[in-house]
Amino acid sequence: MIDVFKQIVKNYALETDRFLEELFDDRGLYLSATLIESIKYSLFSGGKRIRPILCRMTAEMFDGDIDSALKAGSALEMIHTYSLIHDDLPDMDNDQYRRGRLTNHCVYGNGIAILAGDGLLTYAFNVLSKLSLPAEKSLKIIELISESAGVHGMVAGQVLDLEAENRELTLQELEQIHRAKTGALFRAAVLSGAYCSEISSEDLKALESFSLYLGLTFQIVDDILDLVGDEEKMGKKVGSDEKLNKFTYPRLLGLDKARQEAENAALKAVQSLEIFGERANLLRKLVYYILQRQF
Amino acid sequence: MIDVFKQIVKNYALETDRFLEELFDDRGLYLSATLIESIKYSLFSGGKRIRPILCRMTAEMFDGDIDSALKAGSALEMIHTYSLIHDDLPDMDNDQYRRGRLTNHCVYGNGIAILAGDGLLTYAFNVLSKLSLPAEKSLKIIELISESAGVHGMVAGQVLDLEAENRELTLQELEQIHRAKTGALFRAAVLSGAYCSEISSEDLKALESFSLYLGLTFQIVDDILDLVGDEEKMGKKVGSDEKLNKFTYPRLLGLDKARQEAENAALKAVQSLEIFGERANLLRKLVYYILQRQF
Repeated sequence: MIDVFKQIVKNYALETDRFLEELFDDRGLYLSATLIESIKYSLFSGGKRIRPILCRMTAEMFDGDIDSALKAGSALEMIHTYSLIHDDLPDMDNDQYRRGRLTNHCVYGNGIAILAGDGLLTYAFNVLSKLSLPAEKSLKIIELISESAGVHGMVAGQVLDLEAENRELTLQELEQIHRAKTGALFRAAVLSGAYCSEISSEDLKALESFSLYLGLTFQIVDDILDLVGDEEKMGKKVGSDEKLNKFTYPRLLGLDKARQEAENAALKAVQSLEIFGERANLLRKLVYYILQRQF
Repeated sequence: MIDVFKQIVKNYALETDRFLEELFDDRGLYLSATLIESIKYSLFSGGKRIRPILCRMTAEMFDGDIDSALKAGSALEMIHTYSLIHDDLPDMDNDQYRRGRLTNHCVYGNGIAILAGDGLLTYAFNVLSKLSLPAEKSLKIIELISESAGVHGMVAGQVLDLEAENRELTLQELEQIHRAKTGALFRAAVLSGAYCSEISSEDLKALESFSLYLGLTFQIVDDILDLVGDEEKMGKKVGSDEKLNKFTYPRLLGLDKARQEAENAALKAVQSLEIFGERANLLRKLVYYILQRQF
């Protein structure tokens, strides 16, 4: 059973890869080869495609439009990738390695890396303007994603994160940062998938709760892996958050308590899916898949 | 007559200011005060609001939806502003002053400036998802703007510009850079305004030609002003393009020939408007307004 699940996850990731590959296939469309090369370098550097998988699974669960879910998920992956490129810059986290490879700016220079991020973010909205859904639904997804990824969500979270360096945070503050930095885009992935179908407000509410707890699980696990993982597994310098004196869950709670918190969040994510019965089996498995990532 | 025109230009600019002010009014909506402060610093730093004015005038000319033209124009101004913030960064043009004030990163730091740009770009698409037009038309505007501002247009132009430093350019190459860097967003402003109404493909074609020649006029004038203007008028270090060994129209053609080229482009912009008769009077005046900016 677990193998079937892993195969599904792999297939969804591969379909995302294929869509993104095709997007950049026709080089005649683009004015700058450097820009496209730099974008592709980061877009195809071993990302797990969690957001597209999440979007796709939710759409499947409600018999939604799969083509649109694939595109919306891919757009979210483009946004996620741009945020990593900008986050790694010397003016931000100053990371030289990610997933075992040099970061974008280390290969292409800071200027091109900034522009590659800008290009990816803008292109994501171009992809979202061409979904196969009724126009009203496409607009709803664009509204959702632009809110989640911007000054109300992810970008604000990154500012809070930047400002939190070198100072003590409360658990509440740490959660606020992660809700904005990671949770908002997880939420957007789930709800975009739901918008690819018809969905009741009650179901939306349950999905929203699910996505926020899943985002929290993901983030705590990420913090733990950053602390205890080895370079090979994570592909980035272990302890890079420590280096910047960043506050993380294990630093704030200790490793055991942080693991406990991740499990609690995962449990709450699974509980949020209760009203969907068996239909939510894939999403349930995804929670444990994320929780068990390497520990 | 010229005074009535100037009053109209001023009013359209003020309405844009008002819309943008209101967008950031409710501070309770935002997680980070620093982010909003940094965004507002650049958004309200004396921009001429040419793109919103262009969008609005085109919409008026076709009796289009004015509220949507105001919002679309404001979104374009947000995109233009983000591009200036990123363009001024040390990793790009490294400018300390713009319009007589310190650039964003000099006040808020490079990290916040990068994020302020990211936030503005993302927010622009949120504004575009809430126009008062039929959903299909809103999507068309989002498609147009995301194409013009991204890897097919403005961002690609900035990469070409970055790569052109310290090397000789042909006139053709210079025009390609400017068509992408400035022209694409001018075109998007005009066509967005047109999409706020019903418009024939013949009219669209004429507007497209108009917008590209207007963009070219604007850019040549900008290059000339950068060379001959004084610091007070331009609000940035005169000759900053020279400093970076950037190729510009006056450098390539000499000052007199560059002025001639600007006039030629302006003439072609005006000629493109011929089929619209008197309805296009405001747009015609705008061409001369842009041409005569300080010389």
